Amino acid sequence: MSRLVIRNVSVLVVPEQGECHVDEAQDIYVEDDRIAAITPTSPDANPLGDRGSGAAVEVVDGAGLFAVPGLVNSHTHSPMVMMRGAAEDLSIEDWFNRRVWPMEVNLTPERVRVGARLACAEMLLAGVTTFVDHYFHADQIAAAAIESGIRADLAPTFFSSAGEQAISAAFDTTRELAHQHPRITASLGPHATYTVTDDDLRRTADLARAEGLRIHLHAAETDDQTQASLDKHGVTPIQVLERTGVLEAGALVAHGCGIRADDLPILERYAGTAVASCPKVYLKLAMGEVTPIKALRAAGVDVGIGTDGAAVHNTLDVWEAIRMVALTQKQREHDAEWMTLSDTLRLATRGSAAAAGLADRIGVLEPGRQADIALVDLSAPHNQPLHDPRAALVYSVRASDVVTVLVAGQVVVRDRRLTTMDLAEILADARSLAHTLVDLSTGGAVQRYAP
Amino acid sequence: MSRLVIRNVSVLVVPEQGECHVDEAQDIYVEDDRIAAITPTSPDANPLGDRGSGAAVEVVDGAGLFAVPGLVNSHTHSPMVMMRGAAEDLSIEDWFNRRVWPMEVNLTPERVRVGARLACAEMLLAGVTTFVDHYFHADQIAAAAIESGIRADLAPTFFSSAGEQAISAAFDTTRELAHQHPRITASLGPHATYTVTDDDLRRTADLARAEGLRIHLHAAETDDQTQASLDKHGVTPIQVLERTGVLEAGALVAHGCGIRADDLPILERYAGTAVASCPKVYLKLAMGEVTPIKALRAAGVDVGIGTDGAAVHNTLDVWEAIRMVALTQKQREHDAEWMTLSDTLRLATRGSAAAAGLADRIGVLEPGRQADIALVDLSAPHNQPLHDPRAALVYSVRASDVVTVLVAGQVVVRDRRLTTMDLAEILADARSLAHTLVDLSTGGAVQRYAP
Repeated sequence: MSRLVIRNVSVLVVPEQGECHVDEAQDIYVEDDRIAAITPTSPDANPLGDRGSGAAVEVVDGAGLFAVPGLVNSHTHSPMVMMRGAAEDLSIEDWFNRRVWPMEVNLTPERVRVGARLACAEMLLAGVTTFVDHYFHADQIAAAAIESGIRADLAPTFFSSAGEQAISAAFDTTRELAHQHPRITASLGPHATYTVTDDDLRRTADLARAEGLRIHLHAAETDDQTQASLDKHGVTPIQVLERTGVLEAGALVAHGCGIRADDLPILERYAGTAVASCPKVYLKLAMGEVTPIKALRAAGVDVGIGTDGAAVHNTLDVWEAIRMVALTQKQREHDAEWMTLSDTLRLATRGSAAAAGLADRIGVLEPGRQADIALVDLSAPHNQPLHDPRAALVYSVRASDVVTVLVAGQVVVRDRRLTTMDLAEILADARSLAHTLVDLSTGGAVQRYAP
Repeated sequence: MSRLVIRNVSVLVVPEQGECHVDEAQDIYVEDDRIAAITPTSPDANPLGDRGSGAAVEVVDGAGLFAVPGLVNSHTHSPMVMMRGAAEDLSIEDWFNRRVWPMEVNLTPERVRVGARLACAEMLLAGVTTFVDHYFHADQIAAAAIESGIRADLAPTFFSSAGEQAISAAFDTTRELAHQHPRITASLGPHATYTVTDDDLRRTADLARAEGLRIHLHAAETDDQTQASLDKHGVTPIQVLERTGVLEAGALVAHGCGIRADDLPILERYAGTAVASCPKVYLKLAMGEVTPIKALRAAGVDVGIGTDGAAVHNTLDVWEAIRMVALTQKQREHDAEWMTLSDTLRLATRGSAAAAGLADRIGVLEPGRQADIALVDLSAPHNQPLHDPRAALVYSVRASDVVTVLVAGQVVVRDRRLTTMDLAEILADARSLAHTLVDLSTGGAVQRYAP
């Protein structure tokens, strides 16, 4: 059994309802991959006390630091870091049709792996301990995640236009990844309601129910998409998800900015549904609306926070995404008293854990949970004086304030450095291959955006 | 003469119109407080060549770094860092009337100075080389700015309700500060059109014209304010500024989210007008609109980017403000192709310099300009691979990527450390006094928000 204790740390407590608070001067005991106990700090030289068996105990000094549940990026396409900054100032149509989908013709297993390694490094250094991914060559992403020490839920992506073989291969990859490693879970990854046929969505839902898998896909990304679906098919994207059995199987819906009032009673009927909100993207692509989180929460739908891919979000910084959720929700509801600090932190922790399908394993610092923990230093000038650490975590913290990170009990970042991978090598690999990903001369595109 | 050269650095070039670009491998020669030359890098051991006189030359290694014009915070209340996180999740009315204005009863010269020192430290470390301030006890803010090495334009603030003596004192402070130090300029600081009478605005404008001073004030912060002004007085806040002579004297208008189409021809007539936009605040306070930058620019009005005070913005991070401007402007105009990378960087540099009243001295890296320079390291994972450094500067950079900062030719931050002040002392002072600033038991308030 491996043992570790974080001594004398302030712990962010996020209850299911009501106000979050900070318990100061705590010790967090970690045994193997789990939190064993959290107790007021003890000066005991053998901190595990009766719990100890004489085995070596690693001690992490938490003095002056805040322990928060490791962040969860509840919707991303991690290897797209390779396209960071290569598709700027474009309409959503041009972003897809003139840049990203033509670029994705260039994807290879190696390039995806190099991108995923960079993404894992960026996320871990920022205190992100889980990411919920939706992309191609997901086996390569799994390999990068396992190597880096991060936790991931991976949805091998497919379009109906790619044909039967590609769909079967994506299904097979999900099945293989689902049982590969304790830190890896897998979902089925149809791209979207507008790129996957109803028949293929039905097959996906059938497989999901049969094998206990979840489905992660894009739907109702914009209200324009919802209107286009109504015009073409007479139903909203959420109604498509219902009639194809996707909601019944359990779905993580990315974005949902185009979810309408009529959709809410439908979503309310399916307890396994969650929505991931990535608002920086909605502003940057001028999508018109952000996710209707207030209505979704009122309907009992779990909501998580994500970054989407870095080809549009430019970072995988979940702190930034958290702040954008708070700001854009206040704006959307014309109510500065809505999406409070506590509600925001609850979305970022419990909400995103639920979106990842891991509500019983991560998202809270409690005995029995996985030891996914970020230690944050709020002592720099931009967070001081510290009248309210919850306000700092939502509105002033920087990803660079993350000092030490544990995933499943393993120290993966110590004193702002990765312990699991060679960052210089990761960056060199990414730089050497970057031009191959953004090459628009290859011709063709993996798909066409015409919802 | 003091001499310095930044060797082998990539330089951000921001033209008056058109695309920004980066010139790689440049040497920036600094003599005293100015940029003397920018040339392709030379391996010459005596880098000043013919320019040299044998005097010692400090060499700053710029390899791998990007030189950008030092950022300008074009509207803030720097000492309010002391209230960071102490007024959260409140309507704009409650924010003013239940928190901030009751707290400001507690202001003393010492507390303002301690706050201003912290603010200067936060800004310099983030690459902010100039701030445009609007607050009480401005002499204390000047002292902190001078000590820290930052550049500042300071507007001693007054309400009409504070009475004749306070107004005269604020005027006197402006006059004194205007000639105190080469890095300090001063403006007249009536609080707002809704807290200062027309008569007092007229006196301010008369003084401004007589002594060549600018006026920095809040106006048309929200459309509700504009409507209230129309209901009470039959004119918009911008019309108030015109009829009182404030626009003719030259004004920096904070926020302007409530500027209406009818106001634009008025603003177009006064070339000295500028507007500062601080969009994080508009979302957080659910103010309903952001500054109509597109319309203002079309009317020839200079627009700068600011943070406002940290009691609502929570940081003085101008990078964050720049990003929020780009995102919220795309959202506001329903146009992802508007507020491009180049336009955003131009606002952040030339626009903010104009807002500061320093368009001829700062804001661009060119010979003859003040040597206000931030060196930024874009090599960390969150900025890589670097397909477009302009995209990184707008959408992925963190304030913590700033390595070295010069103001007026002086290295004020070297390798992420302040050279001019003791950061530990600044933080200790701020922590020890923080509780005194947010004490709501004192009673009273400096003003009441009822526009």
